[in-house]
Amino acid sequence: MDLAYFKELHLFYQTQLLEDTLPFWFPRSIDEQYGGYLLMRDFDGSLIDDDKAVWIQGRTAWLFATLYNTVEQKQAWLDGARTGIDFLLKHCFDPAGKMYFHVQRDGKPLRMRRYFFSETFAVIALAAYAKATGDAAMADKARELFTRCLEYARGARLTEPKFEPTRPAKAIGIPMIMINTAQQLRETIGDPRCDQLIAGWIEEIENDFVKTDIRCVMEQVAPDGSIIDHIDGRTLNPGHAIEGAWFILHEARYHNNAHYQKLGCTMLDYMWERGWDKQYGGILYFLDVYGKPVQEYWQDMKFWWPQNEALIATLLAYSLTGDKKYKNWHETIRHYTETYFHDKEHGEWYGYLHRDGTVAQTAKGNLFKGPFHLPRQQWYCMRLLWELTGRP
Amino acid sequence: MDLAYFKELHLFYQTQLLEDTLPFWFPRSIDEQYGGYLLMRDFDGSLIDDDKAVWIQGRTAWLFATLYNTVEQKQAWLDGARTGIDFLLKHCFDPAGKMYFHVQRDGKPLRMRRYFFSETFAVIALAAYAKATGDAAMADKARELFTRCLEYARGARLTEPKFEPTRPAKAIGIPMIMINTAQQLRETIGDPRCDQLIAGWIEEIENDFVKTDIRCVMEQVAPDGSIIDHIDGRTLNPGHAIEGAWFILHEARYHNNAHYQKLGCTMLDYMWERGWDKQYGGILYFLDVYGKPVQEYWQDMKFWWPQNEALIATLLAYSLTGDKKYKNWHETIRHYTETYFHDKEHGEWYGYLHRDGTVAQTAKGNLFKGPFHLPRQQWYCMRLLWELTGRP
Repeated sequence: MDLAYFKELHLFYQTQLLEDTLPFWFPRSIDEQYGGYLLMRDFDGSLIDDDKAVWIQGRTAWLFATLYNTVEQKQAWLDGARTGIDFLLKHCFDPAGKMYFHVQRDGKPLRMRRYFFSETFAVIALAAYAKATGDAAMADKARELFTRCLEYARGARLTEPKFEPTRPAKAIGIPMIMINTAQQLRETIGDPRCDQLIAGWIEEIENDFVKTDIRCVMEQVAPDGSIIDHIDGRTLNPGHAIEGAWFILHEARYHNNAHYQKLGCTMLDYMWERGWDKQYGGILYFLDVYGKPVQEYWQDMKFWWPQNEALIATLLAYSLTGDKKYKNWHETIRHYTETYFHDKEHGEWYGYLHRDGTVAQTAKGNLFKGPFHLPRQQWYCMRLLWELTGRP
Repeated sequence: MDLAYFKELHLFYQTQLLEDTLPFWFPRSIDEQYGGYLLMRDFDGSLIDDDKAVWIQGRTAWLFATLYNTVEQKQAWLDGARTGIDFLLKHCFDPAGKMYFHVQRDGKPLRMRRYFFSETFAVIALAAYAKATGDAAMADKARELFTRCLEYARGARLTEPKFEPTRPAKAIGIPMIMINTAQQLRETIGDPRCDQLIAGWIEEIENDFVKTDIRCVMEQVAPDGSIIDHIDGRTLNPGHAIEGAWFILHEARYHNNAHYQKLGCTMLDYMWERGWDKQYGGILYFLDVYGKPVQEYWQDMKFWWPQNEALIATLLAYSLTGDKKYKNWHETIRHYTETYFHDKEHGEWYGYLHRDGTVAQTAKGNLFKGPFHLPRQQWYCMRLLWELTGRP
């Protein structure tokens, strides 16, 4: 084992998380007046909007509770989690129990969307908070909301369809988000359903989305797993597939499962080959499976989150296999992100770079970006390295 | 009057339209098997998808019928219009009479959206085709569909709302599209409602969207015209506002109305000042009214359509006022677009450039781009210049 390297890395991720990322966001983002968090912030931390994105309220509550559960039992972290949990439960559900997407500072609803991602992020927040507090009623809430997510994912509880039934398709995002949600639930408050459910979703990804003949992980396929040869069906999202790869590598590590390890590494290999920009570095956003133009025009930009997913996936793959290729990839992307994404003056990362690494947009928080992918990456890598090196 | 310049320009736009843009698309895009058009094409004309975007089926039928009505009574143009009209009427309405957004090659529906832009483009197509054929029943269809658009625009016929009622807003896109649709209807088959309706929409834009104190045209405002100080409410779309400016300058010219002329020029002035990229040239896509980050990350890209709208607006403004500033702007953007957007090898323009003018995405046709903004611009400029110079 590469102990010296792991120790050095551990210090790096711990320092970045605790001394750079978290201080950018907190304590200033706690909304003392209405509860929840004020997270829509420019590069220098100034508030650009006091609205609240429900996904990110949930993700932030998850982060606080998770830090409390796994790093240190700081009262400020527990309090930080509580304000988000309270805000979610008080304001973010409509009368029918479906969660909103976007609310005002005071909690009044702005937008409902048909997807159930607000729910999945609330599940992991509630579960982590239930563990932190030992509150059995909160744990029940988490499990009930997870049940609701299962109903949405299976189509038993219908969300309004976006497309007509002419050309049915399914997206890798559903099994992916469900795997991660179930892993979080299992590893906080426990849920006897999770192992088997996760195995089923991994099987679906392996059978229907991973294409060995063309070395590719599809983002969308027909219900039988065949490629839909239209623009949307051909569009790949390498950072997303690499996120899926590390969810599966996490499962490989959890169960010491060699098949999952091989599958996760294969998915990472395929999508690194396709997604890594050999000219400028970084993971590209969208590609067409056959090299045609995709619908999106910003497909060659570099977003913060795919790079974070690739940092986790490469470190997990290296720690599981010892293959130097993954160490090399991890160091390559770590160097790349430190050079281009990390704002060493104000802390945190920029979210949106042009292909060549120049900053396209300076917001560090908005409807889709907040304290999640970056601190989750730093936290995950730090904890993995603790386990590999023995926590100091 | 700058006659020599206008004659030279006239030749330029006529040549570009008839010998460069149209031959890129036709005859190869006529779908001989199912009717309608196969328009999703890469830079070299190769087909990347055989789906059909309903907006663009309507816009293309409009283009053919308009060329037939105003340039030359070519049978191929009339036949070109007919196949699109037939396809729209046969396949693009759902059982309740709402138009789809995206259909398969064979006309089976793929996606319905809540907006009524498919309808507005069908109105102008039906009206132009009714004029070309003298078919009174077709003219009635166009007027009936326009009535339906009026009901959508007024909220009398409800489309499913995207936002909760917490923070009501209205977009400049509604009065804008209605002005242009009514102008087309009036100037093809005639409709006694149009003059008054157009006057009302221009009044709404002037009162609620044009902000003299900050020299700005807002894209979205509260129902009373006040600025909504949140990310969406602050987001400007200079190319769109400039399109609105030329719709109003068209009205100024049609009625010889000095007030509209001043209003249109003012809107152009405000949004050219804000939207023209002084570093690389071209109209930027999105800006924040107060210079903060917008939600979109590709906001500094250069799209083909805002440049086309600015070409029309600057030429109209110059022809109406004789102010050399507008001639200078027109020449600046004409030179810019010829240099960066025009594909002189394969014809037509690229759709999506990075801020610095390099090509980001090579498709010339997809769900949103087709033979519309570019040929409409070339056609509009050519016809305006015919009228100014006496058609040869």
